[in-house]
Amino acid sequence: MPSEFEVIARYFTRPARTAMLGVGDDCALVRVPADLALAVTTDLLVEGTHFVSDTDPEKLGHKALAVNLSDLAAMGADPRWATLSLVLPEADEAWLEGFARGLFELADRFGVELIGGDTTRGPRAVSITALGTLPPGLALRRDGARESEDMWLSGNTGDAALGLAHLKGRVKLPDAALRHCLARLETPRPLVELGRRLRGIASSAIDVSDGLVADLGHVLERSGVGAEVWLEQLPRSRAIAECTDAKLARECLLGGGDDYELLFTAPQQRRAAVFTLAAEVGLPLTRIGRTVFGTPVVSVLDDAGRPVSPGPGGYDHFRD
Amino acid sequence: MPSEFEVIARYFTRPARTAMLGVGDDCALVRVPADLALAVTTDLLVEGTHFVSDTDPEKLGHKALAVNLSDLAAMGADPRWATLSLVLPEADEAWLEGFARGLFELADRFGVELIGGDTTRGPRAVSITALGTLPPGLALRRDGARESEDMWLSGNTGDAALGLAHLKGRVKLPDAALRHCLARLETPRPLVELGRRLRGIASSAIDVSDGLVADLGHVLERSGVGAEVWLEQLPRSRAIAECTDAKLARECLLGGGDDYELLFTAPQQRRAAVFTLAAEVGLPLTRIGRTVFGTPVVSVLDDAGRPVSPGPGGYDHFRD
Repeated sequence: MPSEFEVIARYFTRPARTAMLGVGDDCALVRVPADLALAVTTDLLVEGTHFVSDTDPEKLGHKALAVNLSDLAAMGADPRWATLSLVLPEADEAWLEGFARGLFELADRFGVELIGGDTTRGPRAVSITALGTLPPGLALRRDGARESEDMWLSGNTGDAALGLAHLKGRVKLPDAALRHCLARLETPRPLVELGRRLRGIASSAIDVSDGLVADLGHVLERSGVGAEVWLEQLPRSRAIAECTDAKLARECLLGGGDDYELLFTAPQQRRAAVFTLAAEVGLPLTRIGRTVFGTPVVSVLDDAGRPVSPGPGGYDHFRD
Repeated sequence: MPSEFEVIARYFTRPARTAMLGVGDDCALVRVPADLALAVTTDLLVEGTHFVSDTDPEKLGHKALAVNLSDLAAMGADPRWATLSLVLPEADEAWLEGFARGLFELADRFGVELIGGDTTRGPRAVSITALGTLPPGLALRRDGARESEDMWLSGNTGDAALGLAHLKGRVKLPDAALRHCLARLETPRPLVELGRRLRGIASSAIDVSDGLVADLGHVLERSGVGAEVWLEQLPRSRAIAECTDAKLARECLLGGGDDYELLFTAPQQRRAAVFTLAAEVGLPLTRIGRTVFGTPVVSVLDDAGRPVSPGPGGYDHFRD
């Protein structure tokens, strides 16, 4: 069985590329260009809470980094570097190889360099800290939404939660729908290019990790505005649209996390810019509501403008 | 019981001080001064491996940050920011309050700002990523040791391991010695000021976390030189000197981790500068050996220059 040092050397050490000093010293050293701010984010995945014990390690390696890159995307930052903390019950080489493959495949796709980390024995968990850069005045903060702005959503929500509902036996999905939903759940794609292109267009942004209504709530709280979400305007995947359990489908749409779509606000005058951007990045961007004057509350409205219940709220790791 | 968001809001959110944007958005945003490099380090503490379940949370909060600040110190960096990943079996408010108190007390002492993090439910573990800054040319890297340099150690090693040996029933320490050793084990002090003052003096440095011989081995491997360590010159605390089990005491001295002293090399011409520095920072700095031409092997020598066995090697979390 490889030692802690061998694990790091064999699976997680590559020659430093953009870093002055990479894995293998007390610290890594990097240079941040003088005109850019550094964006820092940390996410944690724990076995039993975020993933099951027989999760494909390659998918876990992908997802552990993807959720961090999604946070950078939601800030409009260019991903640069990452550190990895890995807790493992044993130094299982096949597992480590798969995990490293999934992690580095995604890292390479976005030019992210792994510059440090720590491994230790214990109940399986992964924590990644990702670092990105961006022009400081153009960050897509949560507190920038203003009254009477458009609210936009990339892609569609609900698929990851619907896939999870199938795994938990709450619904039985047809094969094609299941494959689609599990891919969304297990190998989310971080919308890095969309995030960086939203600089100067979006007034606020967040990635949908806890659920549409819950994450929108975070934006509203920080921005001090209210919002309407138009239920019938919400984009639906075929899996959601054809789901035999309409109540579950709506819960997934409004409350399901783990989709890692970007939810953002923009002034109405930027509507044409958003449509142009959608075409350029090849992603559906849908106007799903608007911000309104008032307390930071999400009103979900039906086609007749009547409020409907948003259903169960976002994911809370100390409650659910 | 507080929710995940309440835990973050209540215990880990303070107004941003030096950060452009602190806890509560998708990312934190900081500015790194143009003339400085960014040092990045991550350390992980897991219950059952690094600490026992009834560890005082205040001490754990201290230690989780201290081990990271020690890595920054070993690089000669000024600590600036940190992120926290916290896995907890439950959101126990008394525990969280103690943990936050220990963490922030140390953070405040060194001007470190907590800028982000993630909390989730699971088997208790703490991962902190710490960020520091330093003039890029003056980093105390592990690969800078050259042949025929002095080797220096701050303070003394072995106390933390001796305290742990008592807890494991391998030795029975007198009360005063036990108090001293447990303080070293549970609330290590990161030698930040020493590290920053060693810039321009030390040719290489590392913090002693795995054990003196093991950590020296890391430096030698990276630097491509050998080393002699003079056993009788090694500074000993009273607890080590008076330990009734001489074999254990030597094992702790040479192989015990968790002391977080700084081990560094410096050219012989800088000897006077090191003595002056010792007086100025008020820390004993002892010349404990020298680097030699040859393969990266540590030779521990007795007073007559005869090699002695260094005993069990450093700590390996997948082996011990």
